[in-house]
Amino acid sequence: MTPSRTPFGGKKWPVAVLGATGAVGQTFIRLLENHPWFELAEVAASERSAGKKYGEVTRWIEGRMPDSVRDKNVVIVDPANVTSPVVFSAMDSSVAGTLEEAFAKAGKFVLSNAKNHRMEPDVPLVIPEVNPGQLAVIASQQRNRGWTGAIVTNANCAATVAAMALAPLHEKFRIKRLFLATMQAVSGAGYPGVASLDILGNVIPYIADEEPKLEREMCKLLGGFANGEITLSEMQVSSHTNRVPVEHGHTVCMSVEFHERPSVQAAIDVLTAWRGSEDTHGLPSAPAMPLVYTDAPDRPQPRRDVNLGNGMTVTVGRVREDPLFHLRLVAMGHNTIRGAAGGSVLNAELLAATGVIRPA
Amino acid sequence: MTPSRTPFGGKKWPVAVLGATGAVGQTFIRLLENHPWFELAEVAASERSAGKKYGEVTRWIEGRMPDSVRDKNVVIVDPANVTSPVVFSAMDSSVAGTLEEAFAKAGKFVLSNAKNHRMEPDVPLVIPEVNPGQLAVIASQQRNRGWTGAIVTNANCAATVAAMALAPLHEKFRIKRLFLATMQAVSGAGYPGVASLDILGNVIPYIADEEPKLEREMCKLLGGFANGEITLSEMQVSSHTNRVPVEHGHTVCMSVEFHERPSVQAAIDVLTAWRGSEDTHGLPSAPAMPLVYTDAPDRPQPRRDVNLGNGMTVTVGRVREDPLFHLRLVAMGHNTIRGAAGGSVLNAELLAATGVIRPA
Amino acid sequence: MTPSRTPFGGKKWPVAVLGATGAVGQTFIRLLENHPWFELAEVAASERSAGKKYGEVTRWIEGRMPDSVRDKNVVIVDPANVTSPVVFSAMDSSVAGTLEEAFAKAGKFVLSNAKNHRMEPDVPLVIPEVNPGQLAVIASQQRNRGWTGAIVTNANCAATVAAMALAPLHEKFRIKRLFLATMQAVSGAGYPGVASLDILGNVIPYIADEEPKLEREMCKLLGGFANGEITLSEMQVSSHTNRVPVEHGHTVCMSVEFHERPSVQAAIDVLTAWRGSEDTHGLPSAPAMPLVYTDAPDRPQPRRDVNLGNGMTVTVGRVREDPLFHLRLVAMGHNTIRGAAGGSVLNAELLAATGVIRPA
Amino acid sequence: MTPSRTPFGGKKWPVAVLGATGAVGQTFIRLLENHPWFELAEVAASERSAGKKYGEVTRWIEGRMPDSVRDKNVVIVDPANVTSPVVFSAMDSSVAGTLEEAFAKAGKFVLSNAKNHRMEPDVPLVIPEVNPGQLAVIASQQRNRGWTGAIVTNANCAATVAAMALAPLHEKFRIKRLFLATMQAVSGAGYPGVASLDILGNVIPYIADEEPKLEREMCKLLGGFANGEITLSEMQVSSHTNRVPVEHGHTVCMSVEFHERPSVQAAIDVLTAWRGSEDTHGLPSAPAMPLVYTDAPDRPQPRRDVNLGNGMTVTVGRVREDPLFHLRLVAMGHNTIRGAAGGSVLNAELLAATGVIRPA
Repeated sequence: MTPSRTPFGGKKWPVAVLGATGAVGQTFIRLLENHPWFELAEVAASERSAGKKYGEVTRWIEGRMPDSVRDKNVVIVDPANVTSPVVFSAMDSSVAGTLEEAFAKAGKFVLSNAKNHRMEPDVPLVIPEVNPGQLAVIASQQRNRGWTGAIVTNANCAATVAAMALAPLHEKFRIKRLFLATMQAVSGAGYPGVASLDILGNVIPYIADEEPKLEREMCKLLGGFANGEITLSEMQVSSHTNRVPVEHGHTVCMSVEFHERPSVQAAIDVLTAWRGSEDTHGLPSAPAMPLVYTDAPDRPQPRRDVNLGNGMTVTVGRVREDPLFHLRLVAMGHNTIRGAAGGSVLNAELLAATGVIRPA
Repeated sequence: MTPSRTPFGGKKWPVAVLGATGAVGQTFIRLLENHPWFELAEVAASERSAGKKYGEVTRWIEGRMPDSVRDKNVVIVDPANVTSPVVFSAMDSSVAGTLEEAFAKAGKFVLSNAKNHRMEPDVPLVIPEVNPGQLAVIASQQRNRGWTGAIVTNANCAATVAAMALAPLHEKFRIKRLFLATMQAVSGAGYPGVASLDILGNVIPYIADEEPKLEREMCKLLGGFANGEITLSEMQVSSHTNRVPVEHGHTVCMSVEFHERPSVQAAIDVLTAWRGSEDTHGLPSAPAMPLVYTDAPDRPQPRRDVNLGNGMTVTVGRVREDPLFHLRLVAMGHNTIRGAAGGSVLNAELLAATGVIRPA
Repeated sequence: MTPSRTPFGGKKWPVAVLGATGAVGQTFIRLLENHPWFELAEVAASERSAGKKYGEVTRWIEGRMPDSVRDKNVVIVDPANVTSPVVFSAMDSSVAGTLEEAFAKAGKFVLSNAKNHRMEPDVPLVIPEVNPGQLAVIASQQRNRGWTGAIVTNANCAATVAAMALAPLHEKFRIKRLFLATMQAVSGAGYPGVASLDILGNVIPYIADEEPKLEREMCKLLGGFANGEITLSEMQVSSHTNRVPVEHGHTVCMSVEFHERPSVQAAIDVLTAWRGSEDTHGLPSAPAMPLVYTDAPDRPQPRRDVNLGNGMTVTVGRVREDPLFHLRLVAMGHNTIRGAAGGSVLNAELLAATGVIRPA
Repeated sequence: MTPSRTPFGGKKWPVAVLGATGAVGQTFIRLLENHPWFELAEVAASERSAGKKYGEVTRWIEGRMPDSVRDKNVVIVDPANVTSPVVFSAMDSSVAGTLEEAFAKAGKFVLSNAKNHRMEPDVPLVIPEVNPGQLAVIASQQRNRGWTGAIVTNANCAATVAAMALAPLHEKFRIKRLFLATMQAVSGAGYPGVASLDILGNVIPYIADEEPKLEREMCKLLGGFANGEITLSEMQVSSHTNRVPVEHGHTVCMSVEFHERPSVQAAIDVLTAWRGSEDTHGLPSAPAMPLVYTDAPDRPQPRRDVNLGNGMTVTVGRVREDPLFHLRLVAMGHNTIRGAAGGSVLNAELLAATGVIRPA
């Protein structure tokens, strides 16, 4: 598979963004701007924005709004209003549950960033380089639910960063117990999100509902796929999640106990060699290196490393002995790109490249 | 013991600050300003500053320089230049080792914030509310070394915060294994310390030499004292230390396994009830509450809680079950006050109140 | 007049805070905690919070909520619900206009932080040290409007800082033309106010409606009072207002042209000597020095100087020649204390001390 | 002139960076990485670094050090050690004065970012889009000084941002008087530069020597060139320079009086139409738009706009009436790219494209 392949004979495929005006929706729009395979055809949002031009109802957060989206009409999120066969869901979890189901029932492939369906047994929770096998459960999902479309989810942003750093180690040495302490960027809370009076020069040692979500999703991301079913990993996970005054980039400190104890060097070798599933090589949004190991003593750092691989590369470093478990290490990745919209786009590319989804 | 007692018949006792021009030295000077028992009589620093007025050679970092110190002559750090019987050492560890010994040999009581002597068996590493018993080892120290003075140390700033939060739990339930992940303020690195280009909007997941120091000192702080000797705790400790863009206040996330598992409520009850060693009650720098438990879901926070008890109170919260060990909790305290200069001053007060040190 | 005087025979006077749950309302409550003359008797807010306990409906922003307010019942902002003769208004300008009038009509003295009535000719816009004479217009206000109560306003936070620094110079040398460039703290925008994604590591060179407000209010603050009427200063004012990532403290760069050009030293002498109106000396919230001149080349700075005089002192420095006008200087003051709630409380104290308002 | 032209027949021209290990030196190296015309051949620094590999002696500040420079040997800054005909000077002003002269005397073209020679009458102070005519003075410089090489300077970072925004207005309406208030990023102070304890959550209303430098250089940048001589503009300039907690991007608030008063719309039209000197069109580092006018009410903002045109575009907005002078506006640009290293590289490109400098 090479970067130049175009799965649909050179014609771009129309896609829609649901929840297009919010922070994640905007990131989808930035990533789809000039995408070689997909073309942003439709933008949908809540009733409040519907019927107006995107540029009128959207307070653009980062950089500049692409001209191509400014004049698009915003439609209400409803399958009846959307013709694109592939939809990216950036909807709030308060509404994503039923709306995503409605789209899947209507034959759409829903690439969802919402938490609602992530842990359902017949819904893939996918990082393409890590566990593309979970996509095979789509067949069960369609059969179980009588859908012609499907819901495919990407994970919580912090879980994505941790899982990418741990995947090569887990594959080789099998993780048994895992401590995670995160320092998460404010962009993870959307917009307006965290008030500046809460976070300037401060740390908030709490993110609502984040710890159970992170612990749960780690077990599914690093789980297996057998007999048509996703199996959860039995590793034990404990997490401490914190908000810090950083714009983008979640940093995760990890202490890991394995079934088979690796040396520090063996772990570094495995991290350095890892390229992720071959299925992803050459996909438009796949970075040359999904994981980069750094031997600088004080890296990764969010402000300095977050944009590696256009925000799709996770950086890992500080691999060292742990006085309690086996190894300690630090991972950092872009929470709104790799950990949210970019992950969904890469999921869609993999589905397209493997023929699971097809143009209308 | 009541706050109004004055151990020296109402006359203030002259003290000196060694390393007076740096960040920790300045904090000593702020805390000694208007101290009811001690009077800042002498300021000593390196050759570079010696012979000049304090106000000329010092770039004052926080608030305003007290007028009383501005015109003091700076002397070279040497016992020959200092007459005060009690000296506070804010010297850099590159010189503190031998200089502190010279002062102790010359009959001075050295209250040290430097790391050099902390782990020596006959040197007390003291948080007065937690382990005042270690002060009894001063007798051995003087005998062993042939000194008439002595060195008494306070701990690393992050270790101090963690040990104060854990002391009541350890006393009751005995800690077996401990994970610590810290988010440390920039003032912990002194001045100029951390460059703004390194930390603005960033996290640095590394502080040189901090992790072994923190792990080691926890075992001495929460160790015991028996048969005239300090015994180290056998708890196993693993730590991840991080620098964050916060001015003052180290935040520590902890997962703890005990010999005897407490319920969350039992732990909260113990934390709430704790007042620390009675020996400290009523000392001028002792806060009404050495430890405050908060039930707010998102506290403690450095910017909001750091000044509680004039920076001498540690705040603890988020006590909850741990999927791996027994309990998780978060502690936060002022790193340059409770975790450095304020801790030393409180040590001196305890030594004075108990008659170990006496005016010349 | 001495600090110990108690204008009401030692009995505290009940007061109410309108708009008590917001950021400014909370600051009023902090400042009234342990006030020697006033006692917070009532808290009022919008319908949404009414009927509940203050502690339940309020997300406390800074430090800890005083216990004394936690269980107070919140009433709807309406004169019928409030018995206190003095009310502090922290209401949003969208509702403050008519509600404040209703309270004044009902015989209350309304100390308002809202912008609505500031520029009305018969409403005093007062900084007690600067222009207490404007309070004499209360008589006209009551006559004009048929009220037994009255509305007294304090100025925009940036205007207050600039006016305090300029008052002594204006009095002596008469300002003709004035350039102001502000760097304003996020707390000036209330809570949640400025989103962290908007301001972390950033500058926003715009604050809605701030520039005309600032320019206008300067002319009233530094205006005069003659023949029972407030006269606006004819100085010309141009302003640039900016938001910066600072918690508290507005910094204002100023270039000033005078009718009579002072030397730099003459200006410094005037700034140093100024103590403000004698009427304010000894009032409980009046700082020993309303204005402090600093000769440090790089001060005032918000984080380091903002709490001087418990947030009631404005610091001024960098007085130097201006290549275009006459002098350049920098002023900085606490925007939510001196520039908002603290200013209102000081206004109330002055009204009480001078017998304009009396206990019920 | 088109972007594809290569002035030297397709062969890259070797260049050196003097002061290569510091912050500005590193920016030169990043900008020269993959430059189509120039190839970084040599790195020179002080004695302390000389004789070692660049990667060993350099603490890389931003992103990742290019592999191509890591193993280069660092030589002492001395013409005898450098063979490249073009050298970029990122030296500290304490040494740049004489060393740059030595290089020019030795036949090198020195593109200097240092302040030392900027204001000398026969040294061009150039922003290529604004005042390329000053380059003609090189002939006089060589004649005056008996040099075969020459020194060409770029301006102070804040002056560059202001001059680019004002150039089109000055050309059309002639500036008479100018107020500038800057909010400057920490990267402008180099590395380690501003201590985090000084700037976190703070503003420093002072930058050493910055105000006179900024005022002076504005007059040369917006001056003229006639009869072989550079003439300084006679506009009067007053400035207030401030440091703010921003990583990159200087923001400048300006009030301008013109000889011929333009309407707001006329000014906007001129700003929007401006493309800068045609000589620069198509140069590798020249952005498509040297100046972008934004009509967003709250832009430009450093974090959001600083990277426009790869850091070479200045953004200008908030053009509005000024109650005192004629117009107020805000400009923002990247201080270490457009305002430092990028400006020097663009100067070199213009000299190469116009044949003033030639390969060895």
